[in-house]
Amino acid sequence: MPRVSTGESVLARAVRIFDVFTAAQRAVTITDIARRAGLHVATASRLVAELVEHGLLVRTPDGRVQIGIRMWELAQRASPTLSLREAAMPFLEDVHDIVGHHVQLGVLDGTEVLFIERLSARGGVINFTQIAGRLPVHASSSGLVLLAFAPGELQERVLTGALKQFTTHTITRPGRLRTVLAGIRRDGYVITNGHLHPDATGTAVPISHDGTVVAALSAIVPNNRQANAVVPVLRTAARGITRALNGPSADSSHP
Amino acid sequence: MPRVSTGESVLARAVRIFDVFTAAQRAVTITDIARRAGLHVATASRLVAELVEHGLLVRTPDGRVQIGIRMWELAQRASPTLSLREAAMPFLEDVHDIVGHHVQLGVLDGTEVLFIERLSARGGVINFTQIAGRLPVHASSSGLVLLAFAPGELQERVLTGALKQFTTHTITRPGRLRTVLAGIRRDGYVITNGHLHPDATGTAVPISHDGTVVAALSAIVPNNRQANAVVPVLRTAARGITRALNGPSADSSHP
Repeated sequence: MPRVSTGESVLARAVRIFDVFTAAQRAVTITDIARRAGLHVATASRLVAELVEHGLLVRTPDGRVQIGIRMWELAQRASPTLSLREAAMPFLEDVHDIVGHHVQLGVLDGTEVLFIERLSARGGVINFTQIAGRLPVHASSSGLVLLAFAPGELQERVLTGALKQFTTHTITRPGRLRTVLAGIRRDGYVITNGHLHPDATGTAVPISHDGTVVAALSAIVPNNRQANAVVPVLRTAARGITRALNGPSADSSHP
Repeated sequence: MPRVSTGESVLARAVRIFDVFTAAQRAVTITDIARRAGLHVATASRLVAELVEHGLLVRTPDGRVQIGIRMWELAQRASPTLSLREAAMPFLEDVHDIVGHHVQLGVLDGTEVLFIERLSARGGVINFTQIAGRLPVHASSSGLVLLAFAPGELQERVLTGALKQFTTHTITRPGRLRTVLAGIRRDGYVITNGHLHPDATGTAVPISHDGTVVAALSAIVPNNRQANAVVPVLRTAARGITRALNGPSADSSHP
């Protein structure tokens, strides 16, 4: 396919610019954008000006730059996760009401879980997930569930890669990871006690659609026996979400 | 500021491509993209290929194109609406539990309301709003609240523009719109009975931050007296959201 290299690099640079913005750094100076995106300040400045013109970025009163609401709208309106989120949200609310802790919905992207919805509990235990935040699959309950039902090739990639340690309970040995994944396939859920943070227990179950696991539903609870009680709640909600996904109005993108 | 016109047009074209995707049309063929974005098929095809390479678009198994999860992630992670949505979500859930109808959070963008969150009620009345969907300000309860507290210049623009009629109850006369806006500023809420759809009543209140109205909280209920009972619930929640926005951890983008 013919390519226009100037065009290619403009889009690639724009993506690098967007990549600079994070939940912790929502407003950034042009200098910081240039440095972190590896662009000359003049180039960054010109591209930012154009992205501002299209509403994809906006300038703050103090001269920094933020993601524009137009960018959010373009991405959100026809989001690939929209059907899933719409089908799942009422069930997330149910679980949230009943369990009283953080509840979240994650999908697999590469070797990470990307969280697409989250209902947090006021006064709940510590929780590392953020909407549009990521966690490595081996260290989070959602990730383990998604990995357990992922293609063998992806499982091997994770099993042979670095398994970063977060706490003394994080799974860092491939042999143990294999055992845990087999257990998840057998039991249909996982409970991870302090794998990411000593004080928090993750509980996750798979959500299927057309016979494939498409997401993980999880709850983060304090470290005590109640995680066991949360499992049937999550499993019930996951079945409801599957039914909603199969409903006549769901997933209009795959008619 | 110097501009590279090639670069400019690539981004402008990419934005036009993204604009083709809607909640109702999430997967689109290259031919449709070209036609609706006003591009040659070869140009559309090349740009789509590049956007796919960056993960901003993805191809479906049947050869159509969808918004990619990477686009969603880039827009969502540092979304300008994130602080507001995070602060508001627990209160939206409270209102949703108590009122039992659709509850939504909207912000002003141009002369439209852009809905940034929505909790829908199973079996609730008809509701036109969608997340990342828009409604004209004069016809929706959220829009009227946002317009009432908007700069005078914007109010004049709406008052002197076309006021599209949706039902026999839609406000289409500037004089009546002025009266309604003054009433909202006096009362702090609005109830719109059948303005968008004959069977649905909208109820909306403003949410303030640093003395400025930044969003509208609304509920869509059936046409009966219960709209009056919803108002104090919405007002209470709106105050809670304002406090949460002013909280120490909120709005990290404006330290």
